[in-house]
Amino acid sequence: MLKQAIYHRALNQFAYAYDDKNLHIMLQTKKDDMEQVSLIYGDPYDFKDEEWQYQTLKMEKTGSTNLFDFWKVSVKPTYYRLRYAFHCEGVDGETLIYTERGFYQEPPEDIGCYFCFPYLHKVDTFTAPEWVKDTVWYQIFPERFGNGDPTLTPDEGLEWGSAKPTPTNFFGGDFQGVIDHLDHLEEIGITGIYFCPIFKAHSNHKYDTIDYMEIDPQFGDKETFRKLVKECHQRGIRVMLDAVFNHSGYYFESFQDVLKNGESSRYKDWFHIWDFPLQTKPNPNYDTFGFVANMPKLDTANPAVKEHLFDVARYWIEEFDIDGWRLDVANEIDSAFWREFRQVVKEAKSDAYILGEIWHDSMPWLQGDQFDAVMNYPFTNGAIDFFGKQSMKSIEFADSITNVLHMYPQNVNEVSFNLLDSHDTARILTLAKGVKERVRLLYLFQLSFIGTPCIYYGDEIGMAGGNDPGCRACMEWDENKQDRDLFNFVKKLIQMRKDIPAFGNRGAFRFLQVDEEKDIVVYEKKLNQEQLVFVLNNCDQAQAIDVDALQKKKSIELFEEKSISFSDNAVVELPAYGFKCFSIK
Amino acid sequence: MLKQAIYHRALNQFAYAYDDKNLHIMLQTKKDDMEQVSLIYGDPYDFKDEEWQYQTLKMEKTGSTNLFDFWKVSVKPTYYRLRYAFHCEGVDGETLIYTERGFYQEPPEDIGCYFCFPYLHKVDTFTAPEWVKDTVWYQIFPERFGNGDPTLTPDEGLEWGSAKPTPTNFFGGDFQGVIDHLDHLEEIGITGIYFCPIFKAHSNHKYDTIDYMEIDPQFGDKETFRKLVKECHQRGIRVMLDAVFNHSGYYFESFQDVLKNGESSRYKDWFHIWDFPLQTKPNPNYDTFGFVANMPKLDTANPAVKEHLFDVARYWIEEFDIDGWRLDVANEIDSAFWREFRQVVKEAKSDAYILGEIWHDSMPWLQGDQFDAVMNYPFTNGAIDFFGKQSMKSIEFADSITNVLHMYPQNVNEVSFNLLDSHDTARILTLAKGVKERVRLLYLFQLSFIGTPCIYYGDEIGMAGGNDPGCRACMEWDENKQDRDLFNFVKKLIQMRKDIPAFGNRGAFRFLQVDEEKDIVVYEKKLNQEQLVFVLNNCDQAQAIDVDALQKKKSIELFEEKSISFSDNAVVELPAYGFKCFSIK
Repeated sequence: MLKQAIYHRALNQFAYAYDDKNLHIMLQTKKDDMEQVSLIYGDPYDFKDEEWQYQTLKMEKTGSTNLFDFWKVSVKPTYYRLRYAFHCEGVDGETLIYTERGFYQEPPEDIGCYFCFPYLHKVDTFTAPEWVKDTVWYQIFPERFGNGDPTLTPDEGLEWGSAKPTPTNFFGGDFQGVIDHLDHLEEIGITGIYFCPIFKAHSNHKYDTIDYMEIDPQFGDKETFRKLVKECHQRGIRVMLDAVFNHSGYYFESFQDVLKNGESSRYKDWFHIWDFPLQTKPNPNYDTFGFVANMPKLDTANPAVKEHLFDVARYWIEEFDIDGWRLDVANEIDSAFWREFRQVVKEAKSDAYILGEIWHDSMPWLQGDQFDAVMNYPFTNGAIDFFGKQSMKSIEFADSITNVLHMYPQNVNEVSFNLLDSHDTARILTLAKGVKERVRLLYLFQLSFIGTPCIYYGDEIGMAGGNDPGCRACMEWDENKQDRDLFNFVKKLIQMRKDIPAFGNRGAFRFLQVDEEKDIVVYEKKLNQEQLVFVLNNCDQAQAIDVDALQKKKSIELFEEKSISFSDNAVVELPAYGFKCFSIK
Repeated sequence: MLKQAIYHRALNQFAYAYDDKNLHIMLQTKKDDMEQVSLIYGDPYDFKDEEWQYQTLKMEKTGSTNLFDFWKVSVKPTYYRLRYAFHCEGVDGETLIYTERGFYQEPPEDIGCYFCFPYLHKVDTFTAPEWVKDTVWYQIFPERFGNGDPTLTPDEGLEWGSAKPTPTNFFGGDFQGVIDHLDHLEEIGITGIYFCPIFKAHSNHKYDTIDYMEIDPQFGDKETFRKLVKECHQRGIRVMLDAVFNHSGYYFESFQDVLKNGESSRYKDWFHIWDFPLQTKPNPNYDTFGFVANMPKLDTANPAVKEHLFDVARYWIEEFDIDGWRLDVANEIDSAFWREFRQVVKEAKSDAYILGEIWHDSMPWLQGDQFDAVMNYPFTNGAIDFFGKQSMKSIEFADSITNVLHMYPQNVNEVSFNLLDSHDTARILTLAKGVKERVRLLYLFQLSFIGTPCIYYGDEIGMAGGNDPGCRACMEWDENKQDRDLFNFVKKLIQMRKDIPAFGNRGAFRFLQVDEEKDIVVYEKKLNQEQLVFVLNNCDQAQAIDVDALQKKKSIELFEEKSISFSDNAVVELPAYGFKCFSIK
């Protein structure tokens, strides 16, 4: 038994309240090292004749990587308190008890040795809005989705789709353009829109805010925005805005005031200024986003800044009924700010969604006191590298996705914002080198996975585009130029996600087989008695695979809607980049 | 190279802001598996010709256990941002780069692969009061320290020291008794008193509060308490009170109101009541501390309860100038409560100390937003089991103490409340089976360790006593019955801690040699050029040990105050339970 691989700490994804009654406990062990792992547990104050009254419960192996196995169990402590340890039975016949104080041969008598979940508090439990679990998002870059009101188009605006996007050109996308095309979203099954910034700003991307309380005039006015939100809500579509609070734009009134008045500006403490007078060249003498001089970093520990930004957060919820905030560069703002922000937002709308942009491990922000979710880039990386770029082998892919599922608590995973691409990356069709079939595999994987999927505008009709600014082209509204097959395929997947409980967020995900040579992955989604088996061929040649989980099973293949009964040999044949999903009866 | 043993996650003690400029980064590897580990790091936005500009820095092995080595490094990022990975050179000649996305042969080009410390925020940085680092605490159980005003003694009170302590008897300890004996504390060098509860309560231990706003009349009145605090402050002694907020006592007014008025009581939501009418027998039908019916658990998520307890926290600071709160059963109260509590306390007194009673791994409470410290029971367990009970071998002891030092950030360790015993445990002399020499070793180890040590009243003059109630006997004030040698020894240690910088909190601790057969431990305290080498013999026979670190060194032995120059053979001879401390010149 490899002791160095055995890991548990009574925090993060290893021990957490799943809801106000149940705890989830996880253990990591070396791959294939354990025959069985059980939880030894009890109430810390429950003694009889000075002997601690504990129980045991078998743990389930929920995933494996090339290094580790993960074991999980759910337990419901009567008095909300728990002490516990792990009974490890090695494949080598050795048995060890793993506790907070290390390894023992027998369960120790001293209750102090055990791991401790002191008390399950509802108020501390990670709780995201329930509606998010069933939401399918659509990301809109407002300047490029639809031009519904040409009178608003900037003077230098180009004709829709007449040129390639550049860092500085304009095409006149606006709110009316979104309203005009809500049918498109409703038809495919979208239930949430994430808008890139809409506030008054200088650039076409609007990440350099001038005024957080005003709509950028090229998009429309507040009445049009109000109408847009209402129309969305009538169609069952939620609306999330982009909060760019890490930095302002160069033309933000407060920053202009500091530029003008220097040290005597009443806004001088709104930023992190090294010395006066302010200079932007050759290098800014103030903190910025990256090294971008026209994005001065706001001092979010300054009470006046906090008050202003909290007013902003409240205003757009209370006045316009928006349903969520996506937080730009969220991990470069202090957590003290986000804790207060959460209270402000949830007071304004108790089921508002708070989504942080964090590209790395985000556990500190997902403890219940800050965000409801983060943009799930670890998911993105695995999916894109395997199905998209094919730069990753199937085993590595399975490892990376298994890690994604075991790096956060389950209630966090259920509302993770699973994107494939965005305004910050190349588009999936381009990442997949134009191979449409791989885009289909990406969508199939994304829409059958745990979390809340997001479609980047235009991907669903086969738009291509490289890194920023390539990925920000005008939406293609000419149906003849749209990939309607892809559109209908995505529509079907979204419908399956809605109709088949195990297909969507509530089905437990697990890889069943990974064939590295054939580049085939087989995974399962399971919910109660419902079991779905997905077989995906990520190879440009036809392949066949014998799927153990299908042996002797009766099933319906969901895409061909055909009954199939398997014998001992459950060989599934797939064309190049083919896929099947079997619902086992 | 054992990949499964290599662990880092960019949070907790593995990556943290030590102060507002410096980050500490730690890596765990298999014991004796690495030749060298280096940090690869840089600013995430610093690119030249699309190439990331990184630097490298050697890491230092700061400790080893039987399973793992720990490597640490301090780094000061110019722009407060860091991306990093680990360059591991195995003893087997293999070299690997360990990143957030796993192992690579070469540093990956994609910055997204690296570990991320997004931004060092002062407001999020763990910051405990500076004075705590130099404080030596003394714990007083008020009913048993000194009876200075016999008129206050309860009617059923017994003559001082005339009987063994029982769970229910009284001896009349009071504030005047403490004031009368402050000379004793000042003489030995105490700079902080931690008082067990002093508020109006039913029992002799006062953990069953009746009124959080009143002094228990048997201890005195508010004026006497005010005088006590003033007298302490005049002698450079801080005062910390015990906040028992997890539960009230049975006779707490609000609970009495619920008992009387049932569902119509306006306090019914102050507790966790299952159904009405309330019953205490056979089992309480409400949440309690443990299963103790007369300690009903308070609902600390209830705004009215919070308001009351925050008023309490504020009142005793603002009105009586106390310097800290020790939080009883701290981990069974919700973290949302503690976050607000911290703000209330620090607003009332910015350098007040907040100390949680937690017996287990306490990382979640030590992130800067809740407590300044916890009672360091992992330290207690190691020290007591080795020097006290001798139930642990020297190697296990070194492992457990090395784990203690690597389970929290350094700035947390520096203010950890290091106790050897308390009103909740047997006294050290009893734990050491009456062997006084082992008590000396305990004190030497405690007072030369990182953290803020606490002496339980009476231990310093050799009082014995078993578990509660045995450990709560009346303080022995007859000098003839006091162990004055022990008193003077502790006094000397406290003085050394104050006089010799490396001896105290600021010296880095590391085991140099551990001889399991001889039960000898050799450890180092190091601060800049100052190096102390401690050699402790935990065996009932004389022993000699060749100490590598002393070879060819000139030194002064600090207890005998004697110069010693060592040759190639640096043999240190120690009597049974003997000890030496060499200051190397």
